Amino acid sequence: MANPLFSKKSVPKSAQAKVTDIKLDEALTPWKVALIDDEDDVISISEMVLKRVLVDSRPLEFLKAHSAQEAKDLFEQHSDIAIALVDVVMEDDHAGLDLVKWIRESNKNTTTRLVLRTGQPGEAPEEDVIRDYDINDYKNKAELNSTRLKTTIYAAIRSYRDILEVQHGQKGLEDVVSATTRVLQSANSEEFCIRVFKEANDLLGQETGAFYLHYHLINALGNEEQIQLAYDGSRYHIDTHLEHDIYPDSVKKTMSQAMSSHSNVEQDDRLCNFTQLSETSSCVSLVSLAHPTTSLTRRLLNVLLTKVSIIFENLTRLEDIERTQQELMYILGEAIEKRSKETGSHVRRVSLICEFLAQRLGLDEHFVQLVKHATPMHDIGKIAVPERILHKPGKLDGDEWEVMKTHAQVGYDLLCNSKRALPQIGARIALYHHEKWDGSGYPSGLKGKEIPIEGRIMAIADVIDALAARRSYKEPWPPQQILALLKEERGRHFDPEICDIAVDHFDNIMALRAIYPDDE
Amino acid sequence: MANPLFSKKSVPKSAQAKVTDIKLDEALTPWKVALIDDEDDVISISEMVLKRVLVDSRPLEFLKAHSAQEAKDLFEQHSDIAIALVDVVMEDDHAGLDLVKWIRESNKNTTTRLVLRTGQPGEAPEEDVIRDYDINDYKNKAELNSTRLKTTIYAAIRSYRDILEVQHGQKGLEDVVSATTRVLQSANSEEFCIRVFKEANDLLGQETGAFYLHYHLINALGNEEQIQLAYDGSRYHIDTHLEHDIYPDSVKKTMSQAMSSHSNVEQDDRLCNFTQLSETSSCVSLVSLAHPTTSLTRRLLNVLLTKVSIIFENLTRLEDIERTQQELMYILGEAIEKRSKETGSHVRRVSLICEFLAQRLGLDEHFVQLVKHATPMHDIGKIAVPERILHKPGKLDGDEWEVMKTHAQVGYDLLCNSKRALPQIGARIALYHHEKWDGSGYPSGLKGKEIPIEGRIMAIADVIDALAARRSYKEPWPPQQILALLKEERGRHFDPEICDIAVDHFDNIMALRAIYPDDE
Repeated sequence: MANPLFSKKSVPKSAQAKVTDIKLDEALTPWKVALIDDEDDVISISEMVLKRVLVDSRPLEFLKAHSAQEAKDLFEQHSDIAIALVDVVMEDDHAGLDLVKWIRESNKNTTTRLVLRTGQPGEAPEEDVIRDYDINDYKNKAELNSTRLKTTIYAAIRSYRDILEVQHGQKGLEDVVSATTRVLQSANSEEFCIRVFKEANDLLGQETGAFYLHYHLINALGNEEQIQLAYDGSRYHIDTHLEHDIYPDSVKKTMSQAMSSHSNVEQDDRLCNFTQLSETSSCVSLVSLAHPTTSLTRRLLNVLLTKVSIIFENLTRLEDIERTQQELMYILGEAIEKRSKETGSHVRRVSLICEFLAQRLGLDEHFVQLVKHATPMHDIGKIAVPERILHKPGKLDGDEWEVMKTHAQVGYDLLCNSKRALPQIGARIALYHHEKWDGSGYPSGLKGKEIPIEGRIMAIADVIDALAARRSYKEPWPPQQILALLKEERGRHFDPEICDIAVDHFDNIMALRAIYPDDE
Repeated sequence: MANPLFSKKSVPKSAQAKVTDIKLDEALTPWKVALIDDEDDVISISEMVLKRVLVDSRPLEFLKAHSAQEAKDLFEQHSDIAIALVDVVMEDDHAGLDLVKWIRESNKNTTTRLVLRTGQPGEAPEEDVIRDYDINDYKNKAELNSTRLKTTIYAAIRSYRDILEVQHGQKGLEDVVSATTRVLQSANSEEFCIRVFKEANDLLGQETGAFYLHYHLINALGNEEQIQLAYDGSRYHIDTHLEHDIYPDSVKKTMSQAMSSHSNVEQDDRLCNFTQLSETSSCVSLVSLAHPTTSLTRRLLNVLLTKVSIIFENLTRLEDIERTQQELMYILGEAIEKRSKETGSHVRRVSLICEFLAQRLGLDEHFVQLVKHATPMHDIGKIAVPERILHKPGKLDGDEWEVMKTHAQVGYDLLCNSKRALPQIGARIALYHHEKWDGSGYPSGLKGKEIPIEGRIMAIADVIDALAARRSYKEPWPPQQILALLKEERGRHFDPEICDIAVDHFDNIMALRAIYPDDE
């Protein structure tokens, strides 16, 4: 498969920089320094002294305000001010102190480092002020020479940087937590892949080339089970028998390395996570990186991939039980219908046809899936019909026919005591699948919409498949003849609406039938 | 149910304070201040000036070091030093600068605020030092009067506090992420409750009185499904029919309020989370609090409960499918065995007996569960045996007996094509359950351990239940007679080891049988 690890596409405009990547982008971004003073000279001298200062290789950008009011506007426009040098006396004797209080309490800004500068220390005694106001430093203008000013700036920006760094980590972790929640709500493996891919993109703030996962389990019978997944943003592949080669060579190599070393493998262009899920199961997942990324982002991506591995194990367990259930129902439904080990695929085909019709009718997808999985139970009441009647080559006599008809009620009786949705709907399908739209069916002679929808769907699917199949007593009907019968029985045997769908999509239905041919 | 919301127990010694609760406890804890100087006078004067200082109402605690080496020992013992005042010249001219480098780089401490104090500014020019070393302030001893020293301490401790606060949030979130992972790995609802309870305790750093959950779903058939869970640290309750009253009155009231307002309810002594899971499902969960807790902890607990609700929905979906599968197998297995709708409970009872024996044999629990769920398939090959043989009142003749014996192979053939573990083991149980330990069984006449363990278990369980049950052609055997037969057939029909277990625990097996009596 030609599935390049590296996406050649550039980062789309919609992929906005994430907080976790700010460190990279910020290499060029200046630190914002607010100079707040009612004397122009103080502002311009400060700017002159500081203009060439670099902190961690980043320059400073100056925001100026000549009053507490102007300063408030600044703080409302900029949430990322690293440090503010605040004069005490402006509009009034304590304008600067009030501003500090407003910044911390009203503006809820606790990250900006606030340095009070005063020309009249008597107005705001250092010890009282620093105790009573949430400022980070206090400077007497007289003593604040250029060296001292630079030192102050260095110190304050470093504190700001340290706080910001922890906040980025926290924000990133929150992103991972929400990402995990969305992945957890995947209904199946394909949706799972699509969601992980999207969440990895969002976390990286860039397009990842692709997402790969290899799940490995020794099952309770001691057999090895493996599942390989690949998703590159458009194509989804799943392989449970390792027959297709769904990973590119270089991906395969990295994943084998992680699998055999039982540890993560990090390379510039990819991140490969190994997670030991239990004594008997493990998972290797890989995300390819189109662009370099920070160590924080890599750490978060690793956290995400670990969670994703655990979620996949739960999901695959669920899918496995669902498929096992379905498979067992097909096997047993068919065995009961045929009363022999000569298993054909009537129940499998009817199941697909019912699913198709139910979806075209616009029914709720949960309900559609219930109907699909319950249809194999439609004839289980035949278990109680003696073989001499079930297998009678000729036409049934009156008494025999009465016995045969009991299978609808018997099937219902077998299943109806269950409180679970699947047997409940199975019971109804068993009971109603021989009712007819015009009221001439059995066991109750219900008419039209008195017959539950799942019964009406099953009725037509059962007839179509039976006519199209070879039976011991008949050849398969040609499609034209089946179509003619459908049209004839529209509004008689069959619900007109469902019948129209069957007629309109007859080719699709025949194609579905072809997926599971009977052994000839 | 007398299930008090408030645990009267005090916090156990093992419940250590969590980082998320430090704010509460710290009201009394002093801030650690490291005084590092080779001159005793400098240290004692600093201590004298600072000893009555309170920052956010918390006093200072002084840690003293007279050399860089002593200081390293301090940093290795204390990871929670708020501020260190570091002399530049100690063992040598740049001992203080080397110490700073060691603290940041080797000790990996980036939270302690470092203030350099120098008596000889020429040795370490302010601007160079603050640019090249990751310190937070630089002070000339000559200028550092008592007011200035206090100001410095206030400013530095505030920075430290801000960094710590964000770190607490992050650490708490990391705790929630790992807690979620552990809850995600619950195998069933009971384990789920126990794990949530434990994680809530750990997060709170205290004993929670109890954990309650109410899950609500409108299923695909439009029916309402509800599940109520309660766990108080020792007793687990689940109620799916709302028949028992498993919540205390005040809990019920709070949960109803959350359910009807579609929002969280917070009270001093409890936290109740509402999570809308999908259009058709929602979950209310409640944790009772024995002691007051911080708003950060409440926020984190809410995050945990939201995740826990999603995890529960996945888990209950899995459990529902598993139980549906089991129920269908019981219904169909019994129907096939009896070839009628007269369903007894033979397959259910055999299933329980097999589980019991397999557990006593010390087999892996996953394997035990597979065997338990596969046993209902043991006789599905009888589907192909004609009724005249199956229901023959008298003894079968030679040909009839040959036909009857085919059911083992037919059952295997029906199931063996599946790649899934459950049908695979079902196929083996069907094939081997009439083999005998001494080689006199069918279809293959295997001997001893040539017969797979699941076949040997099924053989004895099947016989015990059949003998103990009433059949159309016989009365139930009295227990003593069954026991006598088991002893007689030990090493002949039955595996001696399994037979010994059955004999030793015969009363338990009879008690298991009594759970599902046949309708008389």
